[in-house]
Amino acid sequence: MTGFISISVIDYPALLNEYFNKFRISQAIFSACELGVFDLLLQSQKPMSAVEVAQKLGTSEDGIERLLGVLVAIEIVDVEVVQGTAFYSSTDVANLYLAKTSPKPLHDLIIYNSQTIYPLWNNLVDAVREGKNQNEKTFGLPSEEIFSAIYRSEEEMLKFMGLMNSTWVIDGHDIVTAFDLSSFKTVIDLGGCSGALARELAKEYPSSTVTVLDLPAVVQTAQRHFTQQDDTICFQEGDFFEGEIPPADLYILARIIHDWKEDKNLKLLKKIHTACHPGGGVLIAEALLFENRRGPTMVQMFSLNMLVQTEGKEHPPSHYTRLLTDAGFRDVQVCRTGKSYDAILALK
Amino acid sequence: MTGFISISVIDYPALLNEYFNKFRISQAIFSACELGVFDLLLQSQKPMSAVEVAQKLGTSEDGIERLLGVLVAIEIVDVEVVQGTAFYSSTDVANLYLAKTSPKPLHDLIIYNSQTIYPLWNNLVDAVREGKNQNEKTFGLPSEEIFSAIYRSEEEMLKFMGLMNSTWVIDGHDIVTAFDLSSFKTVIDLGGCSGALARELAKEYPSSTVTVLDLPAVVQTAQRHFTQQDDTICFQEGDFFEGEIPPADLYILARIIHDWKEDKNLKLLKKIHTACHPGGGVLIAEALLFENRRGPTMVQMFSLNMLVQTEGKEHPPSHYTRLLTDAGFRDVQVCRTGKSYDAILALK
Repeated sequence: MTGFISISVIDYPALLNEYFNKFRISQAIFSACELGVFDLLLQSQKPMSAVEVAQKLGTSEDGIERLLGVLVAIEIVDVEVVQGTAFYSSTDVANLYLAKTSPKPLHDLIIYNSQTIYPLWNNLVDAVREGKNQNEKTFGLPSEEIFSAIYRSEEEMLKFMGLMNSTWVIDGHDIVTAFDLSSFKTVIDLGGCSGALARELAKEYPSSTVTVLDLPAVVQTAQRHFTQQDDTICFQEGDFFEGEIPPADLYILARIIHDWKEDKNLKLLKKIHTACHPGGGVLIAEALLFENRRGPTMVQMFSLNMLVQTEGKEHPPSHYTRLLTDAGFRDVQVCRTGKSYDAILALK
Repeated sequence: MTGFISISVIDYPALLNEYFNKFRISQAIFSACELGVFDLLLQSQKPMSAVEVAQKLGTSEDGIERLLGVLVAIEIVDVEVVQGTAFYSSTDVANLYLAKTSPKPLHDLIIYNSQTIYPLWNNLVDAVREGKNQNEKTFGLPSEEIFSAIYRSEEEMLKFMGLMNSTWVIDGHDIVTAFDLSSFKTVIDLGGCSGALARELAKEYPSSTVTVLDLPAVVQTAQRHFTQQDDTICFQEGDFFEGEIPPADLYILARIIHDWKEDKNLKLLKKIHTACHPGGGVLIAEALLFENRRGPTMVQMFSLNMLVQTEGKEHPPSHYTRLLTDAGFRDVQVCRTGKSYDAILALK
């Protein structure tokens, strides 16, 4: 018997079966977040039985015990069994990231994945067939106006902004330090949302003035929910597609290009080029595909998600270089950060 | 800076983010199966461009290219780029398991996960809150009659039977060889569905007579779709809860106990004990939890799935030992196979 046959018969089904079951692990974490499991265990002074957790969260005992069992198995919750009763407690990773009050909260990211992305991906077959997003089938919202869908209510806007905020609290430092940006004194983050990436930039380059320009409703929500005492950044209401782009040394486009079709992106970059001070530039933050089309897996996955949810897609570096050059920029530099998002800098 | 802080800041978000994104990998494989990607690539004599795949499958080019990109990244499809155009081809693992005509097809398992389990798990929060299955909310079917839901149409029955068939084609050999069953000359597989496990038993113990007893509609479907030329097993129509259980040396209950509440299972095992020849026994095939409540992950996940879909749950060995002893059986032996399903043998 050859090595190939013995390996394939024994291991492939288990590996594939793991792939097929992956969605259950995602959904178990999502549900625990939605039910407040991590918040309760963080606040509790002592390990809690399933009966106590069920009472506090208003769930069934049986259901919460099974959910806790999965969380223990993937080592996000801990358990000790005392005289036949299991007592559950939180772990460092849950306390640090999964509770609402965690110092590095991923809570918003999870809720967004659970309530928006998971149901959208239930229609992936139709997205691939039709080549367009599934906002209409999933949520009854028009597929053409992607941000009308994303910002369909103040609650949804807050969720999406929370998601963006989580992303840049975690990955923002790598983006703003991918290149030395200290020579750019005025910086505008176009579509900068809650301002988390702009704050990372202001922290790294304290002599720069950093402004977030976003839609009026977004800026108002950012100022109500995401501004900090002694905030280091300013907000300005505007629409960078339809309205004016103010002059500046550096423009940031973080996860903007991947939302839109190529002609719209080219028009936007030309408009930025016109507004930009001589010697200024544009910094793009996106997840980059490999040129050889073999990954990275997460970025291929993002690109499929863009199909399901937007008009855009992810690209390899060569696409951005061509787009920036066509818009009039020069000296395009690409920096793979090794994290979720990469950085591209181009000069006027 | 301590090691803990540097590790937690750098690695935990990436690990967690991977957990949150797992459902996308499952859904990408499911969608590729539903669209027939693996069948087309298996049949094709040469690597195909995304344009060709899209034409053959009636999908958008852009959508299928992104889906193929994900399949390449997880190494289920291969790619070569010739003069800027990507050409996709199948892999050994896809040919062996993922096409409809594969020698070890997991196709039915995938379709069932995609069309039934994935949408059910979209209501996991409600299942945990209510402590009951979500057939009603997900499919508009009564939550009390779980097999009315599972067998709601001939198409659905075929899908479920295909799933069971895949399971035992893959894992059946480990179950029938967990113990030496050669002394049992008449064997009845209660709820034996398509007969795949019964066939494994008949192959291993050719001097035994093996009968599948299942509901009339299931037996009729099995005979239409799953019987083989010179089949080694017999089928008998019946209802082991409501009707007679014929005498035999050995009864098999494979993934039956985990569907139902404890009182119903105890009643069934007592009835089997009464029907069983002296010196005979019962063989239970289920996935076993650890006694310490720490896993295995897949079994904790199965148990949560039983909440979402049935009345039952998964158990540790001690539960089955107690249940079998209460029903009158003796000499309970447990064998962990190291695969997805374990085996428990008890004697009368």
